[in-house]
Amino acid sequence: MKIYRYPLFNSWPAILRRPSADYSEKLDTVREVMSKIREDGDAAIREYTKQFDKVDIADSQVTADEIEKAVRSLDPGLKHAINIAAQNIDKFHVAQKIPHRVVETMPGVKCWQKSVAIERVGLYIPGGSAPLFSTVLMLGIPAMIAGCREVVLCTPPGKEGKITPAILYAASVCHITEIYKIGGIQAIGAMAYGTETIRKVDKLFGPGNSWVTAAKQFVAMADCAIDMPAGPSEVAVMADLTANPEFVAADLLSQAEHGPDSQVILVTTDEQLINDVITVMGTQLKALPRSATASKALENSRAILLNDMEEMVSLINLYAPEHLIIATRDADLVADRISNAGSVFIGNYSPESAGDYASGTNHTLPTNGWAKSFSGIGLDSFCKKITFQEITRAGIMVLGPVIEQLAEAEQLFAHKNAATLRMK
Amino acid sequence: MKIYRYPLFNSWPAILRRPSADYSEKLDTVREVMSKIREDGDAAIREYTKQFDKVDIADSQVTADEIEKAVRSLDPGLKHAINIAAQNIDKFHVAQKIPHRVVETMPGVKCWQKSVAIERVGLYIPGGSAPLFSTVLMLGIPAMIAGCREVVLCTPPGKEGKITPAILYAASVCHITEIYKIGGIQAIGAMAYGTETIRKVDKLFGPGNSWVTAAKQFVAMADCAIDMPAGPSEVAVMADLTANPEFVAADLLSQAEHGPDSQVILVTTDEQLINDVITVMGTQLKALPRSATASKALENSRAILLNDMEEMVSLINLYAPEHLIIATRDADLVADRISNAGSVFIGNYSPESAGDYASGTNHTLPTNGWAKSFSGIGLDSFCKKITFQEITRAGIMVLGPVIEQLAEAEQLFAHKNAATLRMK
Repeated sequence: MKIYRYPLFNSWPAILRRPSADYSEKLDTVREVMSKIREDGDAAIREYTKQFDKVDIADSQVTADEIEKAVRSLDPGLKHAINIAAQNIDKFHVAQKIPHRVVETMPGVKCWQKSVAIERVGLYIPGGSAPLFSTVLMLGIPAMIAGCREVVLCTPPGKEGKITPAILYAASVCHITEIYKIGGIQAIGAMAYGTETIRKVDKLFGPGNSWVTAAKQFVAMADCAIDMPAGPSEVAVMADLTANPEFVAADLLSQAEHGPDSQVILVTTDEQLINDVITVMGTQLKALPRSATASKALENSRAILLNDMEEMVSLINLYAPEHLIIATRDADLVADRISNAGSVFIGNYSPESAGDYASGTNHTLPTNGWAKSFSGIGLDSFCKKITFQEITRAGIMVLGPVIEQLAEAEQLFAHKNAATLRMK
Repeated sequence: MKIYRYPLFNSWPAILRRPSADYSEKLDTVREVMSKIREDGDAAIREYTKQFDKVDIADSQVTADEIEKAVRSLDPGLKHAINIAAQNIDKFHVAQKIPHRVVETMPGVKCWQKSVAIERVGLYIPGGSAPLFSTVLMLGIPAMIAGCREVVLCTPPGKEGKITPAILYAASVCHITEIYKIGGIQAIGAMAYGTETIRKVDKLFGPGNSWVTAAKQFVAMADCAIDMPAGPSEVAVMADLTANPEFVAADLLSQAEHGPDSQVILVTTDEQLINDVITVMGTQLKALPRSATASKALENSRAILLNDMEEMVSLINLYAPEHLIIATRDADLVADRISNAGSVFIGNYSPESAGDYASGTNHTLPTNGWAKSFSGIGLDSFCKKITFQEITRAGIMVLGPVIEQLAEAEQLFAHKNAATLRMK
């Protein structure tokens, strides 16, 4: 952990700099894979799965039988935990429904917005050593609440051409039945462009490695909407004297174990806390199976000692962390002053892992400073808002002259005429 | 206008195909301009303004004096019309505020979302023969309601290095004071990367020609959020026997006069209406100053005769038009069945130009089929949602075991530990 003591304001941007995410070198490969998929469809997908995942899969769609088996075979304790998490995620996202409110802006001029589900969405779930079934819930539940008519899920097969039961169980909790054993760039291509067996989706969701991210960025340019730009996961902890070093250490390590490029930052007004946290982290680290990964991430992590709360709030808002833990006195008042963050965890008993799994909030969040302009995934992400207006004859008599004047000033006379004719 | 009579369902995609928007050939130029701007800042901007706008501007920022003069000089009738439009836009967008609702997903586990303004936003307003001051209102008013702390506006200067008074007046209505005489790619670059005088923005908004669009797509890949992908403007009119051919003709021409690449579609169950509309358009066209542009757009426009309302709704939802006018019996019931469109105009007295200018709804809308997955601009576009959670000691005792089980199943033991330690 690099320690910065009372750095001057103008040095903050350098201290907070993230590794730059340059996908341009990957784009050529991505472009090539994508054009192959557009040409050869399923055959190309099969070929890439052989090449990248080292397994030959003739029929990539998971059968109802496979799903049922997974549901039956999964450990009941894990099922129960998934069910509780699903309930909480459901509660939090159902509450995001917005009322349909008609605004009469002038007599006879009624306008409203309606939130309508995106019809067909594609969820990408990474595989690997620890398949992220929690992400299935985080994407599948809001899709279900939004009312997306079709939800398709792609996830890479294991060496035996199978998908982990927990992923299939989580999918079944979200009523997802269209599941393909496809991973990586080829999964993004299959969903963005469609093949003989997989219909094109309207929007793509989900995390992935830098290849998946590059593929999503590529299709987003002209072909398919995506959830948000992705980058390595991040946590910042704001802490003062009232923080518990054990908890802070565990939270920093939670982030560090995600990957060697994880971003971990401790911001505090208490120099002793930095020493204590570093000591405790050393102990906790030893007990972790992923200690090598976490150690690597910690090499790039930073502890920043600041003068006061004012500075801490400014620095956090400048950094815009994906996750922010506030372990300070009056943590809720501090939270009110946060304007740039993905998800905020208030007080000593709100670990990031609560939001990662089970409290109900979404764990798909903006990284790499995008929290300045992007929201995390929510119900909104699976809907688009359509505006409607209904103007009466009396309404156009009032509004028409305004339209005429404005259209004329913009020299758009057909626009003007569309109002004039209706006022006759 | 090309006429299609009762086309078979499987021919619809071909009939509805839009001209493909390929910006890849523009990207090399854009990349070059952008790297020059990142290197040379203001000097590069000045050089490009000389090159592209044929005017040398030493200080690109509009002065308070220039704004004041514009405000004083503008025609009072036009001011009044702008004020009325602004009021309606304000009413409609204020109503989009969402209440801050705390959800207790489990006892002691409180979660909520807060909508927070994006701090610094950049608005691009195209110039040219008809400067779009209405777009200033459509972007500036929601930015003001959202509470964006800084709003910067870029618009290209005219040949004498000035900006049209109506744009400056509209900006003043939205309390925008940071205005630069910069257009095209260089405006997008200045706002996305920042220069010595212009600070980088967090998100870019606004329409533009294909160069501006390519520039926005370029910066969106890694450097700055943008509002949405843009394409040529579109209108679809659904009409039956109850439609008024004069009104329909005027609405189609409103779209056609925007540019030669405008997309205009008439969908109807009434063959006679097609003939009537074509006849009336011929007459109306003659009176238009922009008749050459409109004629060109009409060459690619389509009239599609279908069997019934069922087919009309399906075709419209497949096409996902930016603007949809419903001039049919029971138009409001038809509107309920629309799932893909940017903005919907219901009944004979709701012309598209009402929404373009003055009814209150936003006119920055998804084109090119993006209405399947994107919303038009609204209050949300100028905010991001941050999630918060506050868990009590009692709360973590209930939620902790769930977190432990899930984290263990994903083999993330530091995540587990963050819960375990807090339950001790």
